Amino acid sequence: MSDRLIVREQEPLNLEMPFSSLDGFITPNESFYVRCHFPIPEINAADWKLSIEGEVEAPFEIGYEELRAMEARTIAATLECAGNNRIFLEPKAKGVQWALGAVGNASWTGVPLSALLARAKARPGALEVILDGADEGTVDKAPPLPGKISFCRSLPMQKAMSDVLIAHEMNGEKLSGSHGFPARAIVPGWYAMASVKWLRRIIVTDKPFNGFYQSLDYSYWDRSGVLPTLAPLTEQQVKAEIARPEQGETIAVNSRYRIFGAAWSGEAQIEKVEVKIDGGPWETAQLTGDSVKGAWRLWEFEWKTPGDPGRHTVVARATDSQGRTQSAERSGDRGTYMINHLLPLEVEVR
Amino acid sequence: MSDRLIVREQEPLNLEMPFSSLDGFITPNESFYVRCHFPIPEINAADWKLSIEGEVEAPFEIGYEELRAMEARTIAATLECAGNNRIFLEPKAKGVQWALGAVGNASWTGVPLSALLARAKARPGALEVILDGADEGTVDKAPPLPGKISFCRSLPMQKAMSDVLIAHEMNGEKLSGSHGFPARAIVPGWYAMASVKWLRRIIVTDKPFNGFYQSLDYSYWDRSGVLPTLAPLTEQQVKAEIARPEQGETIAVNSRYRIFGAAWSGEAQIEKVEVKIDGGPWETAQLTGDSVKGAWRLWEFEWKTPGDPGRHTVVARATDSQGRTQSAERSGDRGTYMINHLLPLEVEVR
Repeated sequence: MSDRLIVREQEPLNLEMPFSSLDGFITPNESFYVRCHFPIPEINAADWKLSIEGEVEAPFEIGYEELRAMEARTIAATLECAGNNRIFLEPKAKGVQWALGAVGNASWTGVPLSALLARAKARPGALEVILDGADEGTVDKAPPLPGKISFCRSLPMQKAMSDVLIAHEMNGEKLSGSHGFPARAIVPGWYAMASVKWLRRIIVTDKPFNGFYQSLDYSYWDRSGVLPTLAPLTEQQVKAEIARPEQGETIAVNSRYRIFGAAWSGEAQIEKVEVKIDGGPWETAQLTGDSVKGAWRLWEFEWKTPGDPGRHTVVARATDSQGRTQSAERSGDRGTYMINHLLPLEVEVR
Repeated sequence: MSDRLIVREQEPLNLEMPFSSLDGFITPNESFYVRCHFPIPEINAADWKLSIEGEVEAPFEIGYEELRAMEARTIAATLECAGNNRIFLEPKAKGVQWALGAVGNASWTGVPLSALLARAKARPGALEVILDGADEGTVDKAPPLPGKISFCRSLPMQKAMSDVLIAHEMNGEKLSGSHGFPARAIVPGWYAMASVKWLRRIIVTDKPFNGFYQSLDYSYWDRSGVLPTLAPLTEQQVKAEIARPEQGETIAVNSRYRIFGAAWSGEAQIEKVEVKIDGGPWETAQLTGDSVKGAWRLWEFEWKTPGDPGRHTVVARATDSQGRTQSAERSGDRGTYMINHLLPLEVEVR
C-alpha cells in the first residue's frame, strides 16, 4: 500500500494519494487515503460487538457475522478529509499537511443506519445519533482538555435516517484495519470525519451533542443566523481538483494536452466544471463517467498548448446543482478546514 | 476607584477587590471588581436603544428613560468571574490572574427579563435568549477565529423567564461605564460572564446558540451523559473564601482571632461553612447576616490561637443545600474556569 501513497504521518497513520494517480471513478483500496487520529485499534471480529443504545426502546448488540448477514446496500461515496488541501493555506496552518489527495471514491457495502435504528426503536425525543469509534487517545488543544477520549461524532436524526451506511466492505473487500475494520459509518456528502471508523457504539440522544471533534475541532463559524455560532463541519464544499497536469509539469508546445480531474459537492450534483488558462476566459470542461449523488464526477478538458515556450497557470472550478461555486479567497471562519478556494497551478510549456 | 482595587489589566480594564477588604453583605460600587473583554463602549443614554427581537411576535426597541420608567425589582446577587482564583492554578494558566477578589455582591435594580419577553411575545419554538453587548473586538485563540465579535451569550428560555434582571442601577446608583451603563443583565447564581454588560440586543432564537463565549471560551467538559460534551459555563460552584486572615498574615499567640469570609453556591443556599486548622478536624463556622438566594452568605469562626509561635495552615469549605461541597483536587475538565477546590493559606502565629 505505502508505495502508492504519500506518508504524511506515521503515528498516527496518515497517508495521502498522489492525486495525479487518479485513474477512474473508483479509487482502488491500495490507493485510498488513510486518516487516523489515534493508533489503529486491533479488533478481533469474533469478539466485536456494535451496540445500539441510548434513547431507544429496544437497545441491542450486533456481532460481525450478524451484521454481514443483514440485508446490505452498496453505494458509491466520495470521502474527503475536511483538511484536504491544507498544505496550500497561507500562512501555514497546523495539522496534517494534505495536498490534493486526502480524497477518494469507493463502493461501500453495508447496512443502512436507518435499519439498525428502526430495530432499536428510537424514542420520539431522539435528536441526534452519536457514532463512537474504538480509537482512543489524548488530544492537545487549548483548555479545557477532555483527557482520554475516543473519536466520536454525532449526526442529526434526519441525516442518520436517510442515506448513512454502516459499511463492512470497501470495493468488494472486507474493510482493512486502516479503513475501519470491522465496520465504519459512511456519511455520503459529508466531510469524512463524520464517517467514523472502528464503530463500537451507536448512541441515540435527546440532547445536542458537542463532543471534541465537533466543537474544539472540526468546527467552523456559521454566520447564517443573527450572530456567529460555532457549528460542526458537515457537507463537503463544492470543488474541482486537477489530477493532471501536476504543479510544475512540463508540457509540449503545440500539443493537445488532456487536463483532467474530479469534482464533487457534498449532497448536490456537479453541474459544470470550467478551466481557465492564464487570464483567459473560463471554458467548460466535459463531465465524464458515472454521475452518482454523494460521489465525485470525473471531468476533462483538451488544452491546445501554445506554439511558444513559456510558463502558464491552469485553474479549475466547479459549480453545483444549487448554483454554488468556488471563491478565489479563503475565509478565516473555516479555520484549517473546508478548503475549497481556487488553487491555480503553474506548468511549463516547451 | 482604583486605589481600592488591584489592577490586573489596564486594557481591557480588569480590576480586582482585595478580598481582605470584605466588609459586609453588600460590596460598595467603588470596591466591586471590574471584568472587561474589550474597551468599554461609550454609550450616550439619549441615543441608546435596546431591541428585543428574533423569534418573537412583537419585536420592539426600548430607550433608557422608558426602561427606567418600567416597574422595577431590586435583588441582591453575587457576581463571580468564572476565572476567579485562577492565580492559584498549577501549572500557571493563561488568562487574567485573579486571586480571591473577582467576586462581589450588590443590590441590583431593573426590569425582569421575563417582562420584556412577555411584551415581545416569544414564539412557541423559542429555545434560548441571546444577550448581546455593545463591547466588541477581536479574539486570539486556536482557529477557527470568528473575526471581530461582540461579547454575547445565550440563556435557556427557562432561566431567561425566571429570575434574570435587566439592571440599570447598582446599589442605588446608575450603572457606571465599567459596570455596563446604560443596562446590563444580572443572571443570579451564574458565573458573571452570563451577566452581559452594555446590552444592545436581546435575541430570541429557536436554535441552540454556540457563540465564542460559550464554546471556545467559558466552556467545560460535561460528563453527565454517555460521552463528554463541551458545555457553556453556567452555575457558580459552591465555595467559601477566607477574607481574613490573608496569606502570610502574622497573628498573635494566645489570642481569639476572627476568621471570616463569604460563601456562595449558584442557585442553592449555603448550608454550612467549616474551617480546618492544620490537620485538625473540620469545625463549623457561624453563618451571619442576610440569607438571600443567589447572593453570598457571610461567615465567621473564632480561632483560639496556640500559645507557641509557629506556622499554621487555615482552610475553609462550604456545603450547599444540595449537599455539594468543595473537593481538594482540581479537574482538568474545567480548563481555567470554575475554580473551587480547597485553597489552604498559611499564617504565622507569634
